[in-house]
Amino acid sequence: MSDQSRLAATTARLLGEVRSSSPLVQNITNFVSMDVAANVLLAIGASPAMVHAPEETPEFVGFSRALVINIGTLSKQWVESMEVATTAAHAQGTPWVLDPVGAGATRFRDQTVQKLLRHRPAVIRGNASEIMAVARVAGLTTDAARPKGVDSSNTTSEAEELAILLARHCLCTVAATGAIDFVTDGQRSVRLSNGSPLMARVTALGCSLSAVVGAFLGVADDPFEAAVAAIGAYGVAGEIAAETAAGPGSYRVAFLDTLYAVGEADIQQRLKVL
Amino acid sequence: MSDQSRLAATTARLLGEVRSSSPLVQNITNFVSMDVAANVLLAIGASPAMVHAPEETPEFVGFSRALVINIGTLSKQWVESMEVATTAAHAQGTPWVLDPVGAGATRFRDQTVQKLLRHRPAVIRGNASEIMAVARVAGLTTDAARPKGVDSSNTTSEAEELAILLARHCLCTVAATGAIDFVTDGQRSVRLSNGSPLMARVTALGCSLSAVVGAFLGVADDPFEAAVAAIGAYGVAGEIAAETAAGPGSYRVAFLDTLYAVGEADIQQRLKVL
Amino acid sequence: MSDQSRLAATTARLLGEVRSSSPLVQNITNFVSMDVAANVLLAIGASPAMVHAPEETPEFVGFSRALVINIGTLSKQWVESMEVATTAAHAQGTPWVLDPVGAGATRFRDQTVQKLLRHRPAVIRGNASEIMAVARVAGLTTDAARPKGVDSSNTTSEAEELAILLARHCLCTVAATGAIDFVTDGQRSVRLSNGSPLMARVTALGCSLSAVVGAFLGVADDPFEAAVAAIGAYGVAGEIAAETAAGPGSYRVAFLDTLYAVGEADIQQRLKVL
Repeated sequence: MSDQSRLAATTARLLGEVRSSSPLVQNITNFVSMDVAANVLLAIGASPAMVHAPEETPEFVGFSRALVINIGTLSKQWVESMEVATTAAHAQGTPWVLDPVGAGATRFRDQTVQKLLRHRPAVIRGNASEIMAVARVAGLTTDAARPKGVDSSNTTSEAEELAILLARHCLCTVAATGAIDFVTDGQRSVRLSNGSPLMARVTALGCSLSAVVGAFLGVADDPFEAAVAAIGAYGVAGEIAAETAAGPGSYRVAFLDTLYAVGEADIQQRLKVL
Repeated sequence: MSDQSRLAATTARLLGEVRSSSPLVQNITNFVSMDVAANVLLAIGASPAMVHAPEETPEFVGFSRALVINIGTLSKQWVESMEVATTAAHAQGTPWVLDPVGAGATRFRDQTVQKLLRHRPAVIRGNASEIMAVARVAGLTTDAARPKGVDSSNTTSEAEELAILLARHCLCTVAATGAIDFVTDGQRSVRLSNGSPLMARVTALGCSLSAVVGAFLGVADDPFEAAVAAIGAYGVAGEIAAETAAGPGSYRVAFLDTLYAVGEADIQQRLKVL
Repeated sequence: MSDQSRLAATTARLLGEVRSSSPLVQNITNFVSMDVAANVLLAIGASPAMVHAPEETPEFVGFSRALVINIGTLSKQWVESMEVATTAAHAQGTPWVLDPVGAGATRFRDQTVQKLLRHRPAVIRGNASEIMAVARVAGLTTDAARPKGVDSSNTTSEAEELAILLARHCLCTVAATGAIDFVTDGQRSVRLSNGSPLMARVTALGCSLSAVVGAFLGVADDPFEAAVAAIGAYGVAGEIAAETAAGPGSYRVAFLDTLYAVGEADIQQRLKVL
């Protein structure tokens, strides 16, 4: 069986499990992405909850299947919430995803990433510049480019080496996504290339992908497989949606419809493994 | 006149009054629902305002026609805002709606519900599990199921008895909504069954319904009639929208268009009273 | 060359520069508008960032091309963020836009506007009632009507005189937008009248316009030209979008698609200068 057909089979199987078991995914995410991330999770069949108060987070983490931490619209209060939540997740064995939005852009972001890494994410997903910045925060390099705002100024291939080092250092799966997606756990690595340039014209579709990685983590034993399958299914849906969209407005609508409808045959035919 | 035609007439009349007087509805709601709730209110003809600072809330409540409190993305600071707002609303006679999102899921949520109930909501609207949890918080039962996250794990019929007890206890109208909607003020009760399963695949459409109940409260003398009419109009629009939607993305778009366009004839023909 | 063709040429030129240079625009905006404002900025070709923590704002302002401050869902903490950000913007020469949502509705809003005006916005954009309220806060009048919530209860023509006085007083550009848009820097003034009544039925399209003014400020030398061009391009897109929309849901989708696609020819043919 080729890599493509093996990965397509895993992706389709895990997508089916997300839909049949509808895992509860707790998100502490930014204000921009809350609406679309919740809609993406619902469309793909998961059950989203946006819960961040330190007063209730440890309890809530206890019955969530996965936790997603996204540092987009950061504040001191939210960093505290993230610390409480990731501490509880680590203690209770709830796998969690780190989306290091804008890492490298400011010292505050880098300090936050540094704090959160201690609580051992199962998956780190960001664009190439963010992954390179996280690696730098982890002490793995010193020459990473400073990203421009929250969009990537590096290509995925520039981030591959650091992604592998970061995965080994943190004992986790690292995904640098963009036109090409690179997923690694430090031993295994996969490159995928579905999606559409329109995805970068709709806000928070990267953040929402991290939420979907959380949903797949909630039904999979292997974080690397979960990340590959989530990114694969997401990219295939993103590619199909682009075929009918007239621009970023209709693209977001078509993308949610496609996430809801995308099936095993679509994944088998379209999943592009490089 | 049958129940159906009487309720359809009330629903159409109050919808017309929302559109002609465009009541200002103040919302202290969760971060996920702010966008869609505001768009739902605008589509149906009301004037939304999202205002939560304790520094200005008492003033703002004074010229709002209704207040909607939704405990979705809770924090200590927002609970304080909700306390200030509901205290002002009670003192100034502004009717208010409680949407107890995720009640029963954590102690923090239950404590918040307990605090807010003292300020006497005119309407409590939630899914079946949430209504059962609020009743338990009010001391009315001890065996309510623990909800799974923020989605309901109970059916409306399981919540009916507790909804009636809660309405009598709080001297308010209680609405448990879902595939079937049950509305009661402890004396009168109505069951409606419009809507579409797609509504549960778009985030915050329940929260947005609470906001619409607020809009109808702002033009009606009778909170029970307001709640029935709001839920009826919303469900009819939800049913019409499903006829053209391809999935949850296009459903949200069609739903907003339909709320804007839904007319008296639609309501008379489609309102389903059980 | 007529005013119309001269302004259309400027508008098309600056729109092209936004698309080619994709300016990073930092927004401290309300929770309702974050999603749609970010999507509007992406659709028109700019690079949005929503960053508000005092810990990182001064750093972030330093590499942003413009800053947009919107006081919609205010709190004490966010006012502090806005003070830090506008102080940094003024010190570092980053031009910034003030969107005084709901000015005049509460004392808290008026005090916030008063504080922020000290840090010298390049452009103030609001509806007619808000602009009149800001002028009153600046001591320029005492008989401005109290707005109803966050929607305008005054027409643009009622605000023109105060807008001119305010522009002279603050040494900035002032734009009162609505069915008719009035833009002035105290010396030059322009009236535009594109757009669609549906724009008022979609939440935060006014807030998003302020964000677009920020994007144009990021590529223009002259804030007055930037404001006129941003409002012109936005209104032309708004007018085209209305031609295919069935209601507010589909309007928002069509509007984003149109912002992405609107071209020089559209602007030359449609820009309405009164």
